[in-house]
Amino acid sequence: MSNRRGLLLVVSAPSGGGKSTLIARLLKQIDGISFSISYTTRKPRPGEMHGREYFFISEEDFHLMRKREEFLEWAQVYGNYYATHRNTVETILARGEDVLLDIDVQGARQVRRLMPDAVLVFILPPSFDILASRLRQRALDAEETIRQRLKAASEEVKAYAEFDYCIINDDLERAVQELVSVTMAERIRPRRLRNTVDAILSGFRSCE
Amino acid sequence: MSNRRGLLLVVSAPSGGGKSTLIARLLKQIDGISFSISYTTRKPRPGEMHGREYFFISEEDFHLMRKREEFLEWAQVYGNYYATHRNTVETILARGEDVLLDIDVQGARQVRRLMPDAVLVFILPPSFDILASRLRQRALDAEETIRQRLKAASEEVKAYAEFDYCIINDDLERAVQELVSVTMAERIRPRRLRNTVDAILSGFRSCE
Repeated sequence: MSNRRGLLLVVSAPSGGGKSTLIARLLKQIDGISFSISYTTRKPRPGEMHGREYFFISEEDFHLMRKREEFLEWAQVYGNYYATHRNTVETILARGEDVLLDIDVQGARQVRRLMPDAVLVFILPPSFDILASRLRQRALDAEETIRQRLKAASEEVKAYAEFDYCIINDDLERAVQELVSVTMAERIRPRRLRNTVDAILSGFRSCE
Repeated sequence: MSNRRGLLLVVSAPSGGGKSTLIARLLKQIDGISFSISYTTRKPRPGEMHGREYFFISEEDFHLMRKREEFLEWAQVYGNYYATHRNTVETILARGEDVLLDIDVQGARQVRRLMPDAVLVFILPPSFDILASRLRQRALDAEETIRQRLKAASEEVKAYAEFDYCIINDDLERAVQELVSVTMAERIRPRRLRNTVDAILSGFRSCE
């Protein structure tokens, strides 16, 4: 498996879609996949730690890194910037390990352009009303912000067909199982098994 | 889900690859998928039942059905004919249920041409030696036939890259889990969820 290139798994969802819970469960259940920590200019929320949820950086640093083309993708969401560090991702993939990105729809589109082999998963809330009540229950945002998020979500959900897989997040256990299944299935794509399979095939050649 | 069209899952492997065990386990573990029983002109083996393992038919009937284009795919293997009945498959898919075909590489290629949306899974024996010893252990064939099968296998394994997924059958439990994962993952392709997702999306439209 040494020359195997890792799988780049991109997970996107409107905020409040339950993405973080799903991702945490996937990482617990499956080995050989690392979570790529994004860079952001937004302020840390209570309990968030630099280098764990995000790398919290200044706008100045962000634009500097962006100009140096250090980002695989970046997006502006509700006035804050978010980005994925290209080299970090490349290094892990080159080692043959899989990488998971938790990014928004704009970011997912950029990754698709730059790395067509990436696998894109969209997490769809089971309904508008459920998304609205989740956003209100987590009580992180003012009502005006929630309204903005719901409006943005109404745009974002339209993008689902651009993704490779779509998980409807109505039942957490089923949704986790589906995300695990996508990862397991994508790992056994012939192009990702090439070295292992070539070794097996060479044993068959003697018989021809 | 009523208008959903079922998923056509094609599983191929060189004989002795352990395909039947894998398929039996998949059908036990997952709902909503039917096994399509093939037609064959070969004689039943001890314990095989008409309408369970195969529909055993005469060569005359086979060629009659083939000329009437009743088959989705057919192949000649070691002097016997095998085929999949097109209407049976179509009827199940149209009902929104998934169908599993256990066919050889030639058949898989025909299905790919006629139904490009089918999902093709190749089961690869972990090595030539293991395949050889499995064929000898099951003691179904004369040594000459086994040698023919191994020679055919050496050709068939080269086709792995034409398949969507490749399962290396070295660990039964892992192989079953991979086959289940492929089925679950392919069920959440956006195009296969269209009706469910459209219903969800219509709830978002009011917000635009």
